[in-house]
Amino acid sequence: KNNIDEVINAMTLEEKVRMVIGCGMSGPDAKFPGTAGRSYEIPRLGIPSVYFADGPHKLAMSVRREFDSNFYYTTEFPSGSTVAATFNPNAAYEVGKAIGTEVKDYGMDVLLAPGVNLMRNVLCGRNHEYYSEDPLIVGKIAAAYINGVQSQGIGTSIKHFAANNQETNRYSNDPQMDQRTLRELYLKGFEIAIKESSPWTIMTAYNKINGKHTSENIDLTTTILRDEWGYNGLVISDWNAGSDAIASMIAGNDMLQPGQERQYNAIYEAVKNGQLEEKILDRNVKRVLELVVKSNTFNNKSYPNETDLKAHAAISRKVGTEGIVLLTNNGVLPFSEKVNQVALYGSTSYDMVPAGQGFGSLAFGRYTVSLVEGLRNANYEVDKNLIRKYQTHLASEEKRLFPNGRPPFSLAPPPRADEFIPTAEELAEQVKSNDVAIFTIGRASSEPVDRHVREFYLTENELALLKAVSDAYHSAGKKVIIVLNICSPVETASWKSLADAIICAFQPGQEVGHCVTDILIGKVNPSGKLPVTFAINYGDAASDKNFPFDYEFKMPSFFMGSGLSIQGENEEPQEVKPVRNIDYTVYEEGIYVGYRYFDTFNKNVSFPFGHGLSYTTFNYNVINSSVNDDICSVEVTVTNTGNVSGKEVVQVYITAPEGGLKKPSKELKAFGKTRELNPGESETLTLTWKTMDMSSFNDKSSSWELAKGKYLWHIATSAADVKSTVEHKINSSKKIKV
Amino acid sequence: KNNIDEVINAMTLEEKVRMVIGCGMSGPDAKFPGTAGRSYEIPRLGIPSVYFADGPHKLAMSVRREFDSNFYYTTEFPSGSTVAATFNPNAAYEVGKAIGTEVKDYGMDVLLAPGVNLMRNVLCGRNHEYYSEDPLIVGKIAAAYINGVQSQGIGTSIKHFAANNQETNRYSNDPQMDQRTLRELYLKGFEIAIKESSPWTIMTAYNKINGKHTSENIDLTTTILRDEWGYNGLVISDWNAGSDAIASMIAGNDMLQPGQERQYNAIYEAVKNGQLEEKILDRNVKRVLELVVKSNTFNNKSYPNETDLKAHAAISRKVGTEGIVLLTNNGVLPFSEKVNQVALYGSTSYDMVPAGQGFGSLAFGRYTVSLVEGLRNANYEVDKNLIRKYQTHLASEEKRLFPNGRPPFSLAPPPRADEFIPTAEELAEQVKSNDVAIFTIGRASSEPVDRHVREFYLTENELALLKAVSDAYHSAGKKVIIVLNICSPVETASWKSLADAIICAFQPGQEVGHCVTDILIGKVNPSGKLPVTFAINYGDAASDKNFPFDYEFKMPSFFMGSGLSIQGENEEPQEVKPVRNIDYTVYEEGIYVGYRYFDTFNKNVSFPFGHGLSYTTFNYNVINSSVNDDICSVEVTVTNTGNVSGKEVVQVYITAPEGGLKKPSKELKAFGKTRELNPGESETLTLTWKTMDMSSFNDKSSSWELAKGKYLWHIATSAADVKSTVEHKINSSKKIKV
Repeated sequence: KNNIDEVINAMTLEEKVRMVIGCGMSGPDAKFPGTAGRSYEIPRLGIPSVYFADGPHKLAMSVRREFDSNFYYTTEFPSGSTVAATFNPNAAYEVGKAIGTEVKDYGMDVLLAPGVNLMRNVLCGRNHEYYSEDPLIVGKIAAAYINGVQSQGIGTSIKHFAANNQETNRYSNDPQMDQRTLRELYLKGFEIAIKESSPWTIMTAYNKINGKHTSENIDLTTTILRDEWGYNGLVISDWNAGSDAIASMIAGNDMLQPGQERQYNAIYEAVKNGQLEEKILDRNVKRVLELVVKSNTFNNKSYPNETDLKAHAAISRKVGTEGIVLLTNNGVLPFSEKVNQVALYGSTSYDMVPAGQGFGSLAFGRYTVSLVEGLRNANYEVDKNLIRKYQTHLASEEKRLFPNGRPPFSLAPPPRADEFIPTAEELAEQVKSNDVAIFTIGRASSEPVDRHVREFYLTENELALLKAVSDAYHSAGKKVIIVLNICSPVETASWKSLADAIICAFQPGQEVGHCVTDILIGKVNPSGKLPVTFAINYGDAASDKNFPFDYEFKMPSFFMGSGLSIQGENEEPQEVKPVRNIDYTVYEEGIYVGYRYFDTFNKNVSFPFGHGLSYTTFNYNVINSSVNDDICSVEVTVTNTGNVSGKEVVQVYITAPEGGLKKPSKELKAFGKTRELNPGESETLTLTWKTMDMSSFNDKSSSWELAKGKYLWHIATSAADVKSTVEHKINSSKKIKV
Repeated sequence: KNNIDEVINAMTLEEKVRMVIGCGMSGPDAKFPGTAGRSYEIPRLGIPSVYFADGPHKLAMSVRREFDSNFYYTTEFPSGSTVAATFNPNAAYEVGKAIGTEVKDYGMDVLLAPGVNLMRNVLCGRNHEYYSEDPLIVGKIAAAYINGVQSQGIGTSIKHFAANNQETNRYSNDPQMDQRTLRELYLKGFEIAIKESSPWTIMTAYNKINGKHTSENIDLTTTILRDEWGYNGLVISDWNAGSDAIASMIAGNDMLQPGQERQYNAIYEAVKNGQLEEKILDRNVKRVLELVVKSNTFNNKSYPNETDLKAHAAISRKVGTEGIVLLTNNGVLPFSEKVNQVALYGSTSYDMVPAGQGFGSLAFGRYTVSLVEGLRNANYEVDKNLIRKYQTHLASEEKRLFPNGRPPFSLAPPPRADEFIPTAEELAEQVKSNDVAIFTIGRASSEPVDRHVREFYLTENELALLKAVSDAYHSAGKKVIIVLNICSPVETASWKSLADAIICAFQPGQEVGHCVTDILIGKVNPSGKLPVTFAINYGDAASDKNFPFDYEFKMPSFFMGSGLSIQGENEEPQEVKPVRNIDYTVYEEGIYVGYRYFDTFNKNVSFPFGHGLSYTTFNYNVINSSVNDDICSVEVTVTNTGNVSGKEVVQVYITAPEGGLKKPSKELKAFGKTRELNPGESETLTLTWKTMDMSSFNDKSSSWELAKGKYLWHIATSAADVKSTVEHKINSSKKIKV
């Protein structure tokens, strides 16, 4: 069966067309119920179905199966933003390896992950799945994750190729941008990851780019992906993406998922009537079969049908904790020995958000560790009266928000409980009996819904509670800690001075209460860094006005049923005048996304990209820097100069010389993380990149251009905190045409 | 702390009274939520609470706890009747050891089990918890179960002491019987078990006996139990049993559970005003403390808080299978190699009854293996069209039976789906595509509800379906197998000729589908025997008219709420004219219960006590029998004369001589089970009992009397199938006064 061409010769046209089409999503009587789908099988030719399951932070599969007493639990790992906040590719590798093990243990072949779209705007509804506003972080973290998954013989599907940066009208939205922006920001993360990890498959996106569906765009899926980057794997569509099956086939979007009869008919007819060359179809079939023969299913690998949930919970906890970012700390953290009893405020303290939602995690997982549980397991007392109050409050909010009970299925994130404000007397009592107050603020998001701008801001009740708690505890000389358990940045500037410490946990997975506790009590010294800027206000970022920030999402009724019926989703809307930010979105900001914008235009932010505090201090010593054979290299010795052990992230930003294309004032070109350093201990990190990584794309000449002149290399702890700068001169400019 | 008397001296009166009263049932914030309760703690004296959990077939405990991400699963073992049907004390020991391990692993101290009341009537709502209509089976199986639990350092509470044989009006029902009946039948199982296993505690019953609450009856809990039988453990009340706390204290019902304030006040006042001697209270406190110091909690044993569910599932499956009784078989079982595809009829095939319900198992357990799953796991095809039909049927029955959804809590057994009758065309299609038909008939029961006589009979639809299936398959020369997945006997005589084989599985635990499949396919050769007679009609048994067989139970509204609020349950009803079978029940049949009646009065039955077929045949050879030093002994060599390996149960029944008290024509006095014998292999069993075990109780002289004369010893395979009889003479009568 190694001779795939012979097998293709033996296939009927019907079989070939079936082979480039999925077999529908997996219903309750499928081999793997609740998973994304499979490829077509042709038993007479020894071709089995290959099985696809959604990710990225959780293998998505029904826990129960019909007439089966087993429980098919999978681990809820940290969301992408938490993984990225580790700034540690090894951590991403560990998560990938563990989730790949689960896919393997349960007998499937390809995990539809990772999601690597750029965080263009803080309100994008899938930001939790994504990694960063910076393409280098995206690419390095994604490559490590993919290598982790694929180390288990399981395929990945890096997604969504490309520019899938908004959920509103996601099947038809048309981002409009120049080539430079596309290549330097929205393709760059893909390019780095694909070159460093060779994912088995690539998933195109729902959206268009400059008027063309990504799944039907030959420039994207053939010219750039295969011809320029050398990719030779399989390209599959996002589920029900695109509209023209024949264009997809020609473009090299080899497989259409989950497969529709109208796609089958269109392709079949097109070959019959000569509109589609059969050799194009054969080429695509061959790529599908090349995947099939790599799969565990084809190779009849046996699998245990259960997985080591305890080991994976430990990995989830470890990486989830490493991804927590300490934003501020006036010395209250880690807890002193005097802290014994803790008052927990905020509904989210009792009902934490483990990870993002979407098809990758329709319901939350097997369990979510609350902050109550995390603190109790660390032998802290949690105020019991307050627990009872919140239980009552959450029960009444549940009735208010879901008067008819929760819908059996909802892809949109269910509304979350608001806050209540204790009376002054209650607060006084709480201050008296507790050593410290913690207030957790929660935000969840889900495909296919973008966040409304009001989700960026704290609610009236959240702000009032924060103020009341802060006043009451501070009057008594006691401290207040804020925990952000969020999908994507929220407003912090207006209230951050009210807190003695702020922790940003993003969504660190099922062990969330343990992760936060490990940081609070100093069991783990925080080493996470922000992969995304926390702006002062919505509107500050250059992209903010070109995003559907005030769009009121209404869930179509078919989403509220009890199943995965998504018929009609891919119907094109009737032609009316296109609406800005809905039908099309203008990327006016160009390359000025995230810190590239704030930094270049001297805009104040609340917390800069790359920011993250530690319980210890570090000294940086640049012991060497050089350019040799187009490789730039910096050696930095990092010394732990504080009293507790810890890890540190070193970030290298580049300032390009004048004279070439206009550039952001700084761009991240390398980063590295030390091992856990004991007090006094040092480690020397060597950070490298290629000179052409400092080039920019010139739309006019369609080439990557490296300007000559003096480059500043900033060795920094965040985009706003440079520790040391060295200079290197590039003597001659360089140009690579594509 | 070994000097308990010193500790008692140090206790205040308040503390002493608290110590003989439970602390209420365990709510959601208890140490062990959803368990039965605990004893009072006095930290200043180093006295911790001892924790009680309900059984007998499942450690009853909430699966989830507040703010705790663990799952506290426990194994659903076979119901008592299935355990007894093994006729194998080693099997009962294994179940006891496994469930004792779970209690230990989860950190508790006492399992409120086993239930050993006699199956006086087939409609008793708790028969599933009980063992047999014969007190020897009861006593031997109970002793083994208790020894199994207590081998793990966990206490038991043999219950309900005594004569708790009906659920209707259970808090006040007054069984009326003579002393002989009480002692030979209703106490005998307790006596055997207590002497052979020393249970840590004994639980008195809700009911009265001859006008007195069992928990307030000094004859029962002191004179007989302690003075005659030598019991020196703790006696506790059933939960909210009895009405007079002081009488309980005096009677030696040492502890009242789960404890009520009015009990506390009554005892406290009674000691204060001299109505209750403090030394009686001290005696009872001492018995409580003797239990406390034996407990794992007192001894600070650490526990893993998880248990080996896989190992226990295997034990549940093994014993559940060994307890299955093959009632008839015309050669269709085990399945021949020609059987590949199976048609499953009966709603219960898809929704099996793992075990009985009640406080010991409020909801069913972690999972129940259906017959579909059992057969599939053994590589049989199950008719898929029929599966879909039953899924539709069950869904519509669910709507019919629970138009407002299932109540969150119901102690009464929820109604079960009725049957539908396929059309002739559907049946013809099913006959064509299947090799054999299986029809499972299900019956569930639960405290505090007795079964209505209509539950003994098949419904109109069950009979119609049975007839339709039988006609259709037999016309095509195909076979029909009936599986009884029942709490207690049902009517079989009218329809048994329609089946090619009948299997009685009772309720073999969570693995039920695996257990039945193991028998169907001959993976396990059936060796279970009926511990209870299957009568032809309700009304045939001597007790039948003196039982509330047509009582229409109405669940009090507080049972339908969402919690364990059972306030008011123990309120005495207002005095009106006592109603027969409700307020009191006359045990007119005396000692003529079960086969003692049918056998003595030559009443035909459908399946006799002790009956159970095998896939092989056995030869019996009595090689020795003797009476020495008051020990009777029979040696029987059992040889497997068939073609497959198997186990056999040997039963020894005694016929007493004329001249003494009137006796049943036969009474079981010993039984034994071989190991798994290969074809041709033999084992010699030695079965022994004491001569006084053949005595009877004379009410007039209050003594056990052994008549002299010729005793027939019947070596038998059932009460109706004697293989060999030997005679032994007792030369002089004997009398032991009590």
